[in-house]
Amino acid sequence: MKLPEIFASPANVRSVLQGTAIFNAGDESGEMYVVQSGEVDIIINGVTVETVGPEGFFGEISLIEDSVRAADAIARTDCRLLPVNRHHFLFMVDEMPQFALHVMKGMADRLRKADKRAAV
Amino acid sequence: MKLPEIFASPANVRSVLQGTAIFNAGDESGEMYVVQSGEVDIIINGVTVETVGPEGFFGEISLIEDSVRAADAIARTDCRLLPVNRHHFLFMVDEMPQFALHVMKGMADRLRKADKRAAV
Repeated sequence: MKLPEIFASPANVRSVLQGTAIFNAGDESGEMYVVQSGEVDIIINGVTVETVGPEGFFGEISLIEDSVRAADAIARTDCRLLPVNRHHFLFMVDEMPQFALHVMKGMADRLRKADKRAAV
Repeated sequence: MKLPEIFASPANVRSVLQGTAIFNAGDESGEMYVVQSGEVDIIINGVTVETVGPEGFFGEISLIEDSVRAADAIARTDCRLLPVNRHHFLFMVDEMPQFALHVMKGMADRLRKADKRAAV
């Protein structure tokens, strides 16, 4: 799940130490995150359902649904993250159809994997 | 998963009888479908992972990823479906950000459910 190079700007980069909770299930949400470097585990009920690496993204479900977090996101390594808030997200969808397609591709990939897990 | 009223146009409606396979896993894909009436089962390896009802949609994963179908889609009842091909889909994402958001909301909803199943 690679995101457009627009996100490669150094503005707003957030450095996160290994083991830090970026968010926890039940938290209010207002951002998704693009991983610039490092890895983040997405954990539901103690089960790691995905590990997101460089240029991947996470946290988009709560942003899109405007709902609380359904998972924990824990830095598996030291990370550099680019937060994208709801306003920025809607602006990007509006102005850059490629961004919307990119997010949809990432979600399609995750859905395909999740469906495979569910049907085993 | 409700889609904009633009899809309520009667053009291109496809009537499908109960029990018909709209597509099968492994099929080449070029369309997603909006359900106008009736219900469609999405089945992976014999397991029904979702039932899609009126104004819901399905088949978007293969369309977005430009890959073969990962699931069977079987008409649970007699149905009326509105096919959306790749060209139409890309046009809609380009011209109607609300459409992209709508598809993303549907996918977010499915991902949240799939993640819950996976983590049980």
